Amino acid sequence: MTIARVAIIGLGLLGGSIGLAVKTRRPGIVTTGWDRDPAVRARATERGLVGTIADTPEAAVAGADLVILCVPVGAMGDAARAIAPGLAPRAIVSDVGSSKAAVAEALAAALPGATIIPAHPVAGTEQSGPDAGFATLFAGRWCILTPPPGADPAAVAALSDFWTGLGSRVETMDAAHHDLVLAVTSHIPHLIAYTIVGTASDLEDVTQSEVIKYSAGGFRDFTRIAASDPVMWRDVFLTNRQAVLEMLGRFTEDLTALQRAIRAGDGDTLFDLFTRTRAIRRAVIEQGQDDERPDFGREHGG
Amino acid sequence: MTIARVAIIGLGLLGGSIGLAVKTRRPGIVTTGWDRDPAVRARATERGLVGTIADTPEAAVAGADLVILCVPVGAMGDAARAIAPGLAPRAIVSDVGSSKAAVAEALAAALPGATIIPAHPVAGTEQSGPDAGFATLFAGRWCILTPPPGADPAAVAALSDFWTGLGSRVETMDAAHHDLVLAVTSHIPHLIAYTIVGTASDLEDVTQSEVIKYSAGGFRDFTRIAASDPVMWRDVFLTNRQAVLEMLGRFTEDLTALQRAIRAGDGDTLFDLFTRTRAIRRAVIEQGQDDERPDFGREHGG
Repeated sequence: MTIARVAIIGLGLLGGSIGLAVKTRRPGIVTTGWDRDPAVRARATERGLVGTIADTPEAAVAGADLVILCVPVGAMGDAARAIAPGLAPRAIVSDVGSSKAAVAEALAAALPGATIIPAHPVAGTEQSGPDAGFATLFAGRWCILTPPPGADPAAVAALSDFWTGLGSRVETMDAAHHDLVLAVTSHIPHLIAYTIVGTASDLEDVTQSEVIKYSAGGFRDFTRIAASDPVMWRDVFLTNRQAVLEMLGRFTEDLTALQRAIRAGDGDTLFDLFTRTRAIRRAVIEQGQDDERPDFGREHGG
Repeated sequence: MTIARVAIIGLGLLGGSIGLAVKTRRPGIVTTGWDRDPAVRARATERGLVGTIADTPEAAVAGADLVILCVPVGAMGDAARAIAPGLAPRAIVSDVGSSKAAVAEALAAALPGATIIPAHPVAGTEQSGPDAGFATLFAGRWCILTPPPGADPAAVAALSDFWTGLGSRVETMDAAHHDLVLAVTSHIPHLIAYTIVGTASDLEDVTQSEVIKYSAGGFRDFTRIAASDPVMWRDVFLTNRQAVLEMLGRFTEDLTALQRAIRAGDGDTLFDLFTRTRAIRRAVIEQGQDDERPDFGREHGG
C-alpha cells in the first residue's frame, strides 16, 4: 500500500506543518489541502503549505490515498461528512486530534465502511493558524496511532511509514489508553495552566500588572501553554471528559496532601517530592523530548 | 554612598550570576565570595565567579560595602550569624531570597543594628550550583527591594543602583505584599508543577515510561520547573506559608469550577477562560518578560 497523494483538511499549525514536512522530507508525495476559512486558504497558498489548495473539501480529497483531518476534535464529524462525497474507496482517513475515542466514534459514524486509522502526533506550539506551521515540528516527537479493532494491518503500516517519513517515532495503542495517557501528559497540564493564569488575573490584592511584571518567577511558563488555541482545547476537554476528570482527581488529592504538609511545616515531605521530580526531568531530556539547554534555551539578556 | 566592594555569600546560580554580572557590567567593583561547600569554592575559583574566594565567611565580608546572602531562605539566619564578626558597620546587608517577610525577620534577629535591605531578583533557571550562573541572568528582569520601615534611603538608593547596574529593573514594595505577589507568580506555579510531575510518576494505569515519551504534549514544561533546587523550594514554602495557602485556596476554587464545567459539558465557560488567558501571554511578551519565539525558542528537529 503506497501513499502517493495526501489531502490535508484544515491548514492551521498541524495541517500546515504536515504539508511543509512532506514537501521537505517526502517531496515525491503530492499534497492537496482545504480549509473552511477562505483567508486561511489564501495564506496557505502564499506559504505553499500544500501543492494545491482545492475549492471544496470533496475536491481536495479526490484521488487521495491518505486524508488527514486537522481540525478541532469537536469538528471532526462535520469535516468527515464534508469529504465523504469525494473520498476514494481505498483511501485511509486519519486525523491529528488530541482525544481519540471520541474522534474514532465521530469518524466511524460519518464515514461508514471507510478505512479509519486515527492518529495523534504529540507535538505543537502555543501558536495556531496558517502562519504557525513549520517543517520540523514532528522531528523526534511521538505519533500515536489508535487503529480500531480489526483495522487493516496494511493501512496501519502505511500510515506508520508516512509519519516515520516526517521524522516522527510511531507507537500504537488503543484509543482508551491513549486518552488516559494524554490526559496526564497534556490535558491536565493545559487545564492547570489555564486555571492559574485565570486565577492570577482575577485577584484583588495583586494587580494584573504585577502578575505580568514578575512572571519570570515561573508563571510565564504557564502563560505560554494558556495561549494555546481555545477552540481546540475546549473540544479536548469536552471529548475526553472521563479521563480528564479521573486524572484531575488524582492531581487534586496530591495537591491537598502537599497543602497539608505546608500547613504543618512538614519540610521532609516537600523535600522528598522535590527531589524525586528531578529524575523525571532528566529522563525527559535523555529521551530527546525536551531541549537540554537551561530554561528551554530561552534568550537571556533582553 | 558608593558600592565599591561586594561580598557574595553562597556561590550557586544566583550568587555566581551576580559575580559574573558585576565582572561584565561593573568591572570597577571588587568582589569577594564564600560558600560553605569547599567543592563549590573550588569550582567558583576555576570559573572566576568572584575576584577572591575567602576561606571564612567573616573574611569574605571584611571591608565590603554590600554583602549579598545567596543561600536558601531557611539558611539566612545562620549565614547572617556567620558573617557578623567580619561585617563593617557601614555595610548594607542584602539577599536574593524568594520570600521576604521571613528573611527580614531572620536577618534582623541575627544582625541587630545592621543596615538590612532585603531584595529579590525575579530571575533564575532550573539549574543550580556553581556551574549554573551566567552574566546576563538579570538583564531585563525585575529586582524587588523590600526595605523595612525606617530604612536609610541612601542605602536603598545604593542597592537600587547596584541592581540597575547589572541590567535589572528595580521596584520597591513592602515584604508582605512581595510575598503575596510572588506566591501567585512563582510559588504556586512551582507547587503545581512539582505536584503534577509527582502525580504522573505515581499512576498505576499509565507507566512512567509513557509519561516521559509523550511529555511534549505539555507535561515537559512542568518537569523543567519541577527540576528546581529542592532545598531552596522547601524553604520557600515553609517561610511563605500563609500567602501560599491563601493563593492555593483561590487556585483550587477556580480549578473546581472548571472541573464542574467539564463534567457538565459547559463549553462556553471553558472557551471564555481559554480566550481570556491569551491576553496575559501577549502582555508578558510585550513587556519583555518572555521570549517571543514560539515554544520559548526551543529547538525543533531533534
